[in-house]
Amino acid sequence: MAKINIGLIGLGTVGGGVFKALQGFEDVCIKKIALKDINARRRDIENLDISLLTTNPYEIINDPEIDVVVEVMGGTDPALDLIKTAINNGKHIVTANKELLAKHGKELFHLANEKNVVILYEAAIAGGIPLIMPIKTTLAGNKIHKIAAILNGTTNYILTKMEKDNASYGDVLSEAQKLGYAEADPAGDVEGFDSTYKIATLATIALNQRVFTDKIYREGITKITADDIKFARDLGYKIKLIALAEITENNLADVRVHPMLVPDTNILSTINGVTNAVLLEGFPVGKIMFAGPGAGELPTASSVVGDILAIQRDIGASQVLPMMRCCHTVNSTQLDINETENKYYILITAANVPGVIGIIGEICGRNNINLYSLLQNVQKYEQTDSTAQIVVITGKCKEANIQNAISELKNSSKIVNVNNLIRVME
Amino acid sequence: MAKINIGLIGLGTVGGGVFKALQGFEDVCIKKIALKDINARRRDIENLDISLLTTNPYEIINDPEIDVVVEVMGGTDPALDLIKTAINNGKHIVTANKELLAKHGKELFHLANEKNVVILYEAAIAGGIPLIMPIKTTLAGNKIHKIAAILNGTTNYILTKMEKDNASYGDVLSEAQKLGYAEADPAGDVEGFDSTYKIATLATIALNQRVFTDKIYREGITKITADDIKFARDLGYKIKLIALAEITENNLADVRVHPMLVPDTNILSTINGVTNAVLLEGFPVGKIMFAGPGAGELPTASSVVGDILAIQRDIGASQVLPMMRCCHTVNSTQLDINETENKYYILITAANVPGVIGIIGEICGRNNINLYSLLQNVQKYEQTDSTAQIVVITGKCKEANIQNAISELKNSSKIVNVNNLIRVME
Repeated sequence: MAKINIGLIGLGTVGGGVFKALQGFEDVCIKKIALKDINARRRDIENLDISLLTTNPYEIINDPEIDVVVEVMGGTDPALDLIKTAINNGKHIVTANKELLAKHGKELFHLANEKNVVILYEAAIAGGIPLIMPIKTTLAGNKIHKIAAILNGTTNYILTKMEKDNASYGDVLSEAQKLGYAEADPAGDVEGFDSTYKIATLATIALNQRVFTDKIYREGITKITADDIKFARDLGYKIKLIALAEITENNLADVRVHPMLVPDTNILSTINGVTNAVLLEGFPVGKIMFAGPGAGELPTASSVVGDILAIQRDIGASQVLPMMRCCHTVNSTQLDINETENKYYILITAANVPGVIGIIGEICGRNNINLYSLLQNVQKYEQTDSTAQIVVITGKCKEANIQNAISELKNSSKIVNVNNLIRVME
Repeated sequence: MAKINIGLIGLGTVGGGVFKALQGFEDVCIKKIALKDINARRRDIENLDISLLTTNPYEIINDPEIDVVVEVMGGTDPALDLIKTAINNGKHIVTANKELLAKHGKELFHLANEKNVVILYEAAIAGGIPLIMPIKTTLAGNKIHKIAAILNGTTNYILTKMEKDNASYGDVLSEAQKLGYAEADPAGDVEGFDSTYKIATLATIALNQRVFTDKIYREGITKITADDIKFARDLGYKIKLIALAEITENNLADVRVHPMLVPDTNILSTINGVTNAVLLEGFPVGKIMFAGPGAGELPTASSVVGDILAIQRDIGASQVLPMMRCCHTVNSTQLDINETENKYYILITAANVPGVIGIIGEICGRNNINLYSLLQNVQKYEQTDSTAQIVVITGKCKEANIQNAISELKNSSKIVNVNNLIRVME
């Protein structure tokens, strides 16, 4: 195969993994590596030729001998300008940058098409799991109409640990931070931003229309309590942070990220720890599932290297990776969360007096909400003399209706608090 | 994209699915369809132009206007001659024929390389699950060292049903035959031939060396009893027909198909019914899992259509699908089953007298076999006055040693029978 020169921007977790994984590929030459601070570089990387290092990434972007720019620095500034300049300079891009793709994918893919180069990004979504290439190739004959996925390892680790140890969110988060599974500022993971960036790009590819990040409903896991997890378990569910994308009957894109009660019979409920999993539904294929490591130095490097080799194989061919072109002229119309229909789990603290169930039933009924199950005064649930915890699972109903019902419940004198509202996967 | 003409050989379950799935792809023209009996064709296929039908597949093979031959007839005769002639005539091949690839893959892939055409076969292994293309592309930077897979839906359906209903193999098989999940002559599935053909080709690709079907150890599910499944469940396992492929430390290929006790903690234990699943381990990616429908009209058609579209995209390019070339000049050296090391489940019927456990312990000890657990006289297990059932789980030991121990056990006067020996997944 043709020898190619790559420039590596970033030598952190992913960049170091890419460097290691490329050892032994004699036809792939790392010509330059840009990093923030040459003296602060990782000490576990062997065979690193110091003369390749630079703190100026434009030395890579503007090097006429470099064929492929591998961007693994993350963030949008200066990554956006770097990648645009690189594309304008005729370089192919391999990136693991989900935030950049979610926020600027439209612009970048159009530019790449104009300049006849490709942007590959297998590593940006679900780390080491092959996903983008299979959707673009093996599944190309399908109309994919639904994705339900666990795309963030940190939150899945936290929820799994809370379940296993019957522990609080705060305690498990602290522990995860100590172990390096969660960052000092965990918002990107626990508030669902990371999953949102990933599902934006994944849904754009799979549903074949441009999905916009700022229109994706997003809810993190910070309000999930040990009680919620315990009640969910008793009812036959696990709580997971789910990224959803679905085409409705009216051809709207329903794309969102929020916690869900996943039935024990659904394979996503069995995905534990930092593992990621993606469930796809399409025609004619039916349901398929991909699972594996969603992050980490080496798994992510696996996907980056796969993309580099794909470009290497096609360089010199008359068409470069035609199937990897991504140019969605169709913008999706995204469904507002208030228009969605879901089943719901509601945890209510009520006054321990007669008539409370009647009030809940009356308010739900008035809002067109059927009650699917209702648990009250079960001994193992926390009861004090004056209050009782009540768990309600509703039938399928409109989000706007449930939000209205929650307001009315909160206004009722016999309801002390509506502790949580979590959507339920069917 | 370029318009291409395909010829379809076979209009049974898969062929009908391909016909249906290609409706709407205006650039893919089905120019001719060969089938056994024009009058016996399927009645559920709409929009079928009768003038396309022929009973002579050589009308397709020798048609200069046909670019791609889609072979979904199965078997090796006349499929082998048809495909060889088609390749010699410069046609690309898309096939779902696992038996043909397993038995004649070496010859066919070499011929295809010589003639500068490709043979794609995503549908031949695990039906609708994207597997071959991801291994060849996204995972191309990996050294895959292990595969453990459920590749046959019929046997997984039977084992799942036996577990769920506590039913015998014979009863479930009869029911599966009535429902169309098992064939009138079920040997191809239940004796493990189908899984063997599939793992032969999958291991050849993934381990990157030619694996030979006739050297794969094969054992079906016909000897699995409701007792085995019950005992396994009590010990925390499910019984599954597993296709294994692994590179040993000495670089031998350990490839085999046999039932295994799969721990409840392993995701393969959760794969039920006709679903297929493939667990891959490689460096740098780690462990990844693919699951989905392994058979059926539409899922299989999904993979066939994916392959057709891949060829369509690359026709006219200077290189046709370079990554899909399969030319393994390295033949694997395959490990003999007697040289493998495994944990084992042994079900023994013994005389209900003192000293039996001692005899079992002594024989195993003499054969270098550690006992991991041993269940006897547990009330729910069948006991008669004169005999007792004993379940042994061994530590890891050599197959030759366990076979020797089994012989010695059978010769012992206090052992009535060794009912079953099943390998245990770690």
